[in-house]
Amino acid sequence: MWFGVDIGGTSVKAAIVDDGGRLVAQQAIPTEAGRGPADLCLRLRETLRGMADACGMDPGVIRGAGVGVPAFLDLARGVVVEAINLGWREVPLAELLADVLGMPVSVDNDANLAALGEAWAGAGAGAHTVLCTTVGTGVGGGVVIGGRLHHGANGMAGEIGHMRVVREGGLLCNCGQTGCLETVASATAIVREARERQAAGMLPPDERIDGAADVARLARDHEAARRVLETAGRWLGFGLAQAAVVLNPDVIVIGGGVSKAGDLLLEPARAAFTESAQRLVAEATLLRLAKLGNGAGVVGAARLAMQRA
Amino acid sequence: MWFGVDIGGTSVKAAIVDDGGRLVAQQAIPTEAGRGPADLCLRLRETLRGMADACGMDPGVIRGAGVGVPAFLDLARGVVVEAINLGWREVPLAELLADVLGMPVSVDNDANLAALGEAWAGAGAGAHTVLCTTVGTGVGGGVVIGGRLHHGANGMAGEIGHMRVVREGGLLCNCGQTGCLETVASATAIVREARERQAAGMLPPDERIDGAADVARLARDHEAARRVLETAGRWLGFGLAQAAVVLNPDVIVIGGGVSKAGDLLLEPARAAFTESAQRLVAEATLLRLAKLGNGAGVVGAARLAMQRA
Repeated sequence: MWFGVDIGGTSVKAAIVDDGGRLVAQQAIPTEAGRGPADLCLRLRETLRGMADACGMDPGVIRGAGVGVPAFLDLARGVVVEAINLGWREVPLAELLADVLGMPVSVDNDANLAALGEAWAGAGAGAHTVLCTTVGTGVGGGVVIGGRLHHGANGMAGEIGHMRVVREGGLLCNCGQTGCLETVASATAIVREARERQAAGMLPPDERIDGAADVARLARDHEAARRVLETAGRWLGFGLAQAAVVLNPDVIVIGGGVSKAGDLLLEPARAAFTESAQRLVAEATLLRLAKLGNGAGVVGAARLAMQRA
Repeated sequence: MWFGVDIGGTSVKAAIVDDGGRLVAQQAIPTEAGRGPADLCLRLRETLRGMADACGMDPGVIRGAGVGVPAFLDLARGVVVEAINLGWREVPLAELLADVLGMPVSVDNDANLAALGEAWAGAGAGAHTVLCTTVGTGVGGGVVIGGRLHHGANGMAGEIGHMRVVREGGLLCNCGQTGCLETVASATAIVREARERQAAGMLPPDERIDGAADVARLARDHEAARRVLETAGRWLGFGLAQAAVVLNPDVIVIGGGVSKAGDLLLEPARAAFTESAQRLVAEATLLRLAKLGNGAGVVGAARLAMQRA
């Protein structure tokens, strides 16, 4: 058994995961990052004990822990270099938590561990080369090769949201570039485009459009909303095709909030992918929706712990 | 010691390579693919004996052989599925050559082995993640991670020549797509663009322009030729930037005939790369010219043999 932890800005997901990637127990606690990492470590110990008790499990069967953090990390030392959303800097999290739990602890970036979770026990299970992309407020990603995370030179591998798909005249991205995939295929882009159509009278003026889910809801009755999702999906497929000729993945997993739009996003993404990727690459690649949802992070964290053991 | 072989359409390079990637002896023989693979295997045995004799080396110290083939291969079985330039189909090359040489033989695609050679003992030596690109008639590539080739789902990893950098209105590529990197950054593209400028009176009408080397020569005296190389270099840098956010390489190695243009190509490529890649990715990536030239293939083939031993 393994302890998987996924630290978010507002809540922390904790789970006991077995050797096959199944969630044996899970619980969410508030992050309260302002109380500091040592406090969170103590609360995680209590959470783990509580979950083990509830299952009638001896906590001694848990052999290690993995932790996903929304941060830039020094993986070799297990240190959170900077976690902007948590306000943490230079936190030796692996060491702190290992002391509290009395077991080995490994840390990695949260998006990477979600990718590892999907590649291990989700939509990428059994595949050798898996590219996972998370389409939410931004477009993130992770790369898993032969069952292990590929971090690259400085942990940026799989950050396909910053492929510049619009070479000229693209919108400004948070990263400082223009025309990144994130500017045309994220929830942010979908909301922006839908609001523009609303302002142009193509969608009902009284509908609130705050997220991609609102656009997916409107798509049931409104062609203009369907077109917005189709355009985002086509951009996503185009970007994934470029990534696929570099990596030649067996499976591309599409997750994140926007992926809940399902076929409204996936069908145009698939069509654009097949049109845009080199033929042999396109034939070899399966595009799949993520399977583990919010649980991908804790499952991947548990897998990381297994791999380090 | 290892026997490295690089089969080309007209000649076959053969070399004895030591454990450090140094060429101890080398020789080229005509391919004469029409005489069949069994005939080539016998000639390779004679070549190896001749090289060993010339060095006063006992052929018994050679522990294995690696062979690069310009072909689509079944790597697990060591079979050349189809080598169009050689006219070979379904040739069990690894088995044939192993029988003749009396040592283990591994085969891989020639472009992949050139990448492995550069990553091991050339411009990528010591780096964890290396993307090698060969800019010649086309734009090919290979990916080496942790010292080993990353093939991907069907051996297409690193084929960055087929990233579609021109999304709308691009030229037709050999692959059937339009706007591939290969259509704007290859020797073919450089010659085409230079000839257009020549036809427009911007380059001397009596100069033959048959290859990128001709354009590099004209660039000494003619701004128009420099601009052609600059444009190709900028496209290359833009394409490499897209690949880099997927793979996050430590080093990108640029080889192939066009790379002989040196800084005329590399400087604009570096500039476009830095402008186009996500900042943290750009900061982590070194762009370097290939070091091993034509020898990369045999060195990589020897490395493959080492890795399989």
